[in-house]
Amino acid sequence: MPKIIVEVSARHCHLSQKDLDKLFGKGYKLTIMKKISQPGQFSAQEEIKIVGSKGEMKLRIVGPIRDKTQVELPVTDCYRFLGIEPVLRVSGDIKGTPGALLVGPKGKVEIKEGVIVAQRHLHVSDKEAKDLGVKNGDLVSVKIGGVRGLTFDKVIVRSGEGHKKSFQIDTDEGNACGWRPGTYGELIV
Amino acid sequence: MPKIIVEVSARHCHLSQKDLDKLFGKGYKLTIMKKISQPGQFSAQEEIKIVGSKGEMKLRIVGPIRDKTQVELPVTDCYRFLGIEPVLRVSGDIKGTPGALLVGPKGKVEIKEGVIVAQRHLHVSDKEAKDLGVKNGDLVSVKIGGVRGLTFDKVIVRSGEGHKKSFQIDTDEGNACGWRPGTYGELIV
Repeated sequence: MPKIIVEVSARHCHLSQKDLDKLFGKGYKLTIMKKISQPGQFSAQEEIKIVGSKGEMKLRIVGPIRDKTQVELPVTDCYRFLGIEPVLRVSGDIKGTPGALLVGPKGKVEIKEGVIVAQRHLHVSDKEAKDLGVKNGDLVSVKIGGVRGLTFDKVIVRSGEGHKKSFQIDTDEGNACGWRPGTYGELIV
Repeated sequence: MPKIIVEVSARHCHLSQKDLDKLFGKGYKLTIMKKISQPGQFSAQEEIKIVGSKGEMKLRIVGPIRDKTQVELPVTDCYRFLGIEPVLRVSGDIKGTPGALLVGPKGKVEIKEGVIVAQRHLHVSDKEAKDLGVKNGDLVSVKIGGVRGLTFDKVIVRSGEGHKKSFQIDTDEGNACGWRPGTYGELIV
């Protein structure tokens, strides 16, 4: 079975330019702190806060800016710290999801929707998808070995330009499977 | 495949009478707050604090008292709040595991070992084990359905007196599989 690198996404957000302006000032540009595995994407130096009914947390920004603001949280953060209902969605599908208050150094934004728990997903380029025998939107499984071994089902394939081979899970999923840096999984198509 | 109820164990501890005495006073007896699924066991009204290098958290006590004090934590709590190395163990196997400071209303106990991340496990009575075709110490798998479906491997069977059919996971594992009260899994032997 093909081996796939497993990466853990901690809580973070993607911002629209409009919301970035409100939080950091008109025409603001994000500062790259660290490039991440997906081509062109980066963790920004800037941080904001997310505020729910129960409490607040710091939130990393992943750039570049997007059309719509979206916050990705693990279920633990939703329940324990923020008081936001965890709603599982594929990234980008935010219609009808919970909102939250975002707070930056220059202002606040009350988003009406956009807070999701990201569905575990496999990023692949078009060529990688072809080589692996999968296509965008497929549901596949990934088996993780080790002392906390498990097989993740309902892994959605996201392929196309700007994608590169990486199986992405959140911190709850990473802790549940004993993830460490350098963990690989086996793709089951 | 046989259906098994799935229960999530939040962080908790079991205390020896010696440590209970130090934390609550000589000859102290725990007060039952709520019976739990395993025969004779209960959540106590009393709470203590656990202190690691990074911070502290409240800790529920599960009674009755045991021979050895043991703390069971999800990996999230180990890393994020306490600064305690997460070490996966079967309940009871605490040799060489991390210690911690426990703080009660009447005193403190510095345990030298006993802090574990509990290996996911299937409790079954002797009769249930026979009916399911498993025995104490077997490693089995449990498949969870739903939008965050996955199959947990390395589930250790714990059977004998004082056990009753229940598949037990921690909060990280519960969040990773979309657990809700009333979730059932399918046993794969």
